[in-house]
Amino acid sequence: MGEKIYGKHAIEEGIKFAPSGSILYLCRGTGKKFADLDRMARFSKKVIVKKISKAEMDKMLPEIDHRGALLDLGGARKTHSRINTKSVKEYIDNLSNGEPGLVLVLDGITDPHNLGAILRSCDQFGVDLVIIPERRSVQANETVIKVSSGAAQYVPIAQVVNINRELKLLKDSGFWIYGADMNGKSSYKTDFAHRSVLVMGNEGSGISRLVRENCDYITSIDMQGHIDSLNVSVATGILLYEFRRHFNK
Amino acid sequence: MGEKIYGKHAIEEGIKFAPSGSILYLCRGTGKKFADLDRMARFSKKVIVKKISKAEMDKMLPEIDHRGALLDLGGARKTHSRINTKSVKEYIDNLSNGEPGLVLVLDGITDPHNLGAILRSCDQFGVDLVIIPERRSVQANETVIKVSSGAAQYVPIAQVVNINRELKLLKDSGFWIYGADMNGKSSYKTDFAHRSVLVMGNEGSGISRLVRENCDYITSIDMQGHIDSLNVSVATGILLYEFRRHFNK
Repeated sequence: MGEKIYGKHAIEEGIKFAPSGSILYLCRGTGKKFADLDRMARFSKKVIVKKISKAEMDKMLPEIDHRGALLDLGGARKTHSRINTKSVKEYIDNLSNGEPGLVLVLDGITDPHNLGAILRSCDQFGVDLVIIPERRSVQANETVIKVSSGAAQYVPIAQVVNINRELKLLKDSGFWIYGADMNGKSSYKTDFAHRSVLVMGNEGSGISRLVRENCDYITSIDMQGHIDSLNVSVATGILLYEFRRHFNK
Repeated sequence: MGEKIYGKHAIEEGIKFAPSGSILYLCRGTGKKFADLDRMARFSKKVIVKKISKAEMDKMLPEIDHRGALLDLGGARKTHSRINTKSVKEYIDNLSNGEPGLVLVLDGITDPHNLGAILRSCDQFGVDLVIIPERRSVQANETVIKVSSGAAQYVPIAQVVNINRELKLLKDSGFWIYGADMNGKSSYKTDFAHRSVLVMGNEGSGISRLVRENCDYITSIDMQGHIDSLNVSVATGILLYEFRRHFNK
């Protein structure tokens, strides 16, 4: 078995870049549910389709809610990397003069569902680079790719040792840093810069102290609830939406 | 064992309404991590605190990532309902003349993570009523309550047999129905009414045909991605945020 992709959306995306010899496994008895995957695979001419029993698939993907479809990208050959990595320096070096930019820093997101949903939003709202610390954070894994519906592969991700060092590089290139936290300026009224970095903190503890000190502005979503915050993937989506709205007015 | 609550935020909320005789179980060796829960429980005078081993808690909550804390609301007595239910008719009957309203219809959300995150957003953005069909939808269960960080108990939920019948009741009370779907008017420019119903569709298939026919307007979030949509909890959060922005201008 090679690299495995499950989840209908992720498989759809996976078929697009699957190397020859990849295998799409479909459970018998799933009816028309995966007819389009079947068609896509055959059309690709690189992916073989095999029908197997649910028990066989359960064995291939133990403890995973596979829903009856699995794309195996083949293990012998080196497959195309499914995560699009890019260093901050590389990103900055390729920016042309006056080119706008939107960078998202995830300071300690630990839940793969959240990271997956965030990467999906990044794809939709055109985030140019996502920065994730190497430690104390969830990395882009199978669950993340599934939850992102395949968006993970389109969004450049920089895994970094020290967030503050990268923020300094970005500041030196004309970026302004916006931290999402309570008691800041209302997001409705936040004046985002053409080159902006949005910093989102950990699900429970928020942005870490040192990173917060590097933020030029704090932006807050107006809320009125009993619980103190939104889900972090929802909050990230809202702020990316607000950023785009700001330049669409 | 009675009704069980896990997840730190959910337990914090649970302690507030726990009946006498409830027990807060904390794993030994978790250090100061749950010191505030411990304090809250003792302060409540209704919740007894017991320290147990991780193995004992694993046995109480098999296959659940409990993180070392569990609130047992006691099984003998009838506990306070943790879901706040209300019928659409009851909601409408209690509206005063000219009172604004925001109702959210979830037409077939099946993922408990999504429902939990959505209920948390509903709490923050002051949604007055959430309508969930009884069939083909996830109901408010343990996972939902956990993901909602306890918000589930603050948001009135109507579980209904027929969404269209309820939409008709709402229309007759001056509500306008906004369906979230592709190819509608940009959400940035959607003119929400003081009495609005927002309809969100299923994660994969969107709003069902009959419900869509009952929508007065279709609103769409401007996107530019490779994947065709946002995560439904993110999209819901964005539209609720946009609704509030509309009346904050």
